[in-house]
Amino acid sequence: MPALDALRDRIAELSDLAALGRLAGWDQRTMMPPAGAPARAHHLATLERLFHDRATADEIGTWLDEAEADGDGLTDVDRDLVRLARRDWERTRRVPGDLAAELAAAAAEGEAVWQTARAANDFAAFAPALERNVALARDYAASFEDVAHPYDALLADYDFGLTRARVSEIFDPLAAELTALTAEAATRPDPPPLVVPLEAQRAAVDAILARLGVRDDSWRVDISAHPFTSWLSGTDTRITTRYLPDTHLESVIAAVHEYGHALYERQVPAELQRTNLGRGTSMSAHESQSKLWENHVGRHPAFASVIAAELGAAGFAIEPDAIHSAICAVKPSLIRVSADPLTYPLHIVLRFDLEVALIEGSLEVADLPAAWNDGMRRLLGVEVPDDAHGVLQDVHWSGGASGYFPSYALGCLIAAQLWERLEADAGPQDEALRTGETAAIRAWLAEHVHRYGRRLDTEPLVQAATGRGIDPQPFLRHVATYVRA
Amino acid sequence: MPALDALRDRIAELSDLAALGRLAGWDQRTMMPPAGAPARAHHLATLERLFHDRATADEIGTWLDEAEADGDGLTDVDRDLVRLARRDWERTRRVPGDLAAELAAAAAEGEAVWQTARAANDFAAFAPALERNVALARDYAASFEDVAHPYDALLADYDFGLTRARVSEIFDPLAAELTALTAEAATRPDPPPLVVPLEAQRAAVDAILARLGVRDDSWRVDISAHPFTSWLSGTDTRITTRYLPDTHLESVIAAVHEYGHALYERQVPAELQRTNLGRGTSMSAHESQSKLWENHVGRHPAFASVIAAELGAAGFAIEPDAIHSAICAVKPSLIRVSADPLTYPLHIVLRFDLEVALIEGSLEVADLPAAWNDGMRRLLGVEVPDDAHGVLQDVHWSGGASGYFPSYALGCLIAAQLWERLEADAGPQDEALRTGETAAIRAWLAEHVHRYGRRLDTEPLVQAATGRGIDPQPFLRHVATYVRA
Repeated sequence: MPALDALRDRIAELSDLAALGRLAGWDQRTMMPPAGAPARAHHLATLERLFHDRATADEIGTWLDEAEADGDGLTDVDRDLVRLARRDWERTRRVPGDLAAELAAAAAEGEAVWQTARAANDFAAFAPALERNVALARDYAASFEDVAHPYDALLADYDFGLTRARVSEIFDPLAAELTALTAEAATRPDPPPLVVPLEAQRAAVDAILARLGVRDDSWRVDISAHPFTSWLSGTDTRITTRYLPDTHLESVIAAVHEYGHALYERQVPAELQRTNLGRGTSMSAHESQSKLWENHVGRHPAFASVIAAELGAAGFAIEPDAIHSAICAVKPSLIRVSADPLTYPLHIVLRFDLEVALIEGSLEVADLPAAWNDGMRRLLGVEVPDDAHGVLQDVHWSGGASGYFPSYALGCLIAAQLWERLEADAGPQDEALRTGETAAIRAWLAEHVHRYGRRLDTEPLVQAATGRGIDPQPFLRHVATYVRA
Repeated sequence: MPALDALRDRIAELSDLAALGRLAGWDQRTMMPPAGAPARAHHLATLERLFHDRATADEIGTWLDEAEADGDGLTDVDRDLVRLARRDWERTRRVPGDLAAELAAAAAEGEAVWQTARAANDFAAFAPALERNVALARDYAASFEDVAHPYDALLADYDFGLTRARVSEIFDPLAAELTALTAEAATRPDPPPLVVPLEAQRAAVDAILARLGVRDDSWRVDISAHPFTSWLSGTDTRITTRYLPDTHLESVIAAVHEYGHALYERQVPAELQRTNLGRGTSMSAHESQSKLWENHVGRHPAFASVIAAELGAAGFAIEPDAIHSAICAVKPSLIRVSADPLTYPLHIVLRFDLEVALIEGSLEVADLPAAWNDGMRRLLGVEVPDDAHGVLQDVHWSGGASGYFPSYALGCLIAAQLWERLEADAGPQDEALRTGETAAIRAWLAEHVHRYGRRLDTEPLVQAATGRGIDPQPFLRHVATYVRA
């Protein structure tokens, strides 16, 4: 079928361009000398513009019409390929070119304004940029007439199929339970501080990743200011971590977290590579993979034996219990990115409620700091001393990424749900994790999550893997062990 | 002028795509895990195809017509920009799409066949691939009706404006003189072998590059199997070297050589960046820059003091004379890439004569090994033991890069010619080089070579910088010092 062949060729081209964009981004964050930044911005803008032109071209519509007309002749994979191509093409074309350009400009300018405002602890300096971003986000949402709530249009870019209503339905009871658990945790004494020499951390990260199957022939492990994962293909995977003299072994935990993202992309079947189905399906699904490895493997009491063994091999003797206490300590705090696993979703619930209110117009930007501080008091029981440690802490709103936050918490919930099902299917993993054996976990994830690529959206994927939709109960059972252990 | 603006935008886009291609190539040779290769081939092929489509598009012709019609209104730079855009656009469009695709396929397949044939020392296994490449090169040359000799069309891709006749005019007397000098050198005793610990080599490379102005804010220095230079912009420069326990300090010499390539790209004026003028003008001009730094700085007797000082600082005590003797030793040998500065051009003259004969049809592929071995005996006085150490040693013919070889020798000649003029203008550099001071050299090159970018072709550039065309005499004077010192 010539139309399908043409469509597949274009999709492969777009996949290659996206990979080049990831390469440029990875290089920028790990290898590029600082003075390379201005030219890199040009390279990325050119790539993005070409990608957009090729992704929204009229001829794709012709190919789609022809391929859909011959629907019965399509394989199951090709049917999904055509379905997603139709969705992606129509969604991208819905947004007028002028609006897309203004969104990009406002995001770039907003980030610059935010950096200055955060450094100066000056919300008023940031407010006009945020007002512009909110107005543009509403214009963007208005491009999609078929959504029940404007926020749904934003959410769809990160987690297609989820809605504001569905997220509220999940988050509201979650917040109530977590707030109670947080209050309970606040009464517990802090564990003794743990300071691990950086050299021992480095050796342990390398050894632990090697146990998980990380090999030089198809992986890279580098250092970056903010840990992240990139991939250039199913056999060219690049993760990063960072080394700090902190008390939570962030280097190890971040490496295991990024490994979860990486494994998802690696275990998408080869036949889906270079198609529009050949990657993780959504931000929530991706975060569920990183959180599964972070919370359910990395923070598992049995896995503390592995961490202790590897630190010991590097000359730093420590008991597994001391590691487990340190990396599972719960304490309400101000900053999302350093929050513990139990309180983390509450930071997200706050942001979700506020950004929904901004988008629907029930909250003014000027009233946002007070609403933030009220929320932190209500949900986490902490007092926000200033906006730099409050409403100004995250980059997302400055860069126009409204709708992104929910995936961080949904990922935690889905991870716990998948883990319960994995142990029900494959048996308890305690013994295996005590020796660092994870082959059964990898195989279960490949079979029940990774093999779909983008063929299933977030909640249908959770349904297929666990037999029910997104459910906060497994997560609540998991984090209760942090408080009541 | 809207046409000129449109042309400039397209040229900037092509410049960005070329930079992304260099990034992908740099990554492939320094960072990429081996299993990333198949996907990288897709990324690069997609990028190349898009580049070709955008570079040969019909609308460029319309913009060129309009810009040329308004020629009087153009600045000098814009006139050159339009002139080069016209040339590049017409040359690329001359080649039929089918032929371009077959050339690319034959190059990829030819390289694979060559690798196997070289490993097996089996020229007969390579001959059909070479015959195909020769036939395609002739078809390619036939796309350009306005050339006096088919080889001129191939040469123009690497050194626009040079011709087979002009190169012969330069090479024929050069070969005669060098053959005599080589025979003279063969009677001299070998210097004692020099083995420098790798750690001392590493420290010396870093320290010497730092003396030349290499800083982390806008440079990278990495290791690769074959040293090379890449650049992502004028302030993002990436060179590599390699570390071997050899007797010629290749790590230092290669680093200084690559620095010469890098400095050329860095000192092209900012106003030419992201235009079609903003890079080195030709392969010969580029090689002249690397060879100037390699032969006239790195191998300068005075600079041996700097190398000795830096090796000494790294704990390896050695006299400057011992370094100079080792890195300037002359000995006729079989392999081009490890040849000394004096005999190196003879390896090139041989390849040039043979590839001209193949292209014009006066030599059959089947007769090539015998012709090679005869040439090595005649030019260098060495006997070729087998084809792996003879006609099969280089990748170029397998990959369809006929016409490339001359630039290696022309670069040596131009380097010597520029160096003589530089010392005539700026004074002898002996004292400065003894302390590693090279600011005057960098400034002279910026003023007389680098500032033109592509605005002058190879021989006009040499003419502008030295007052005459390419002349082998300065090189012959230079290498005579290796034999008669």
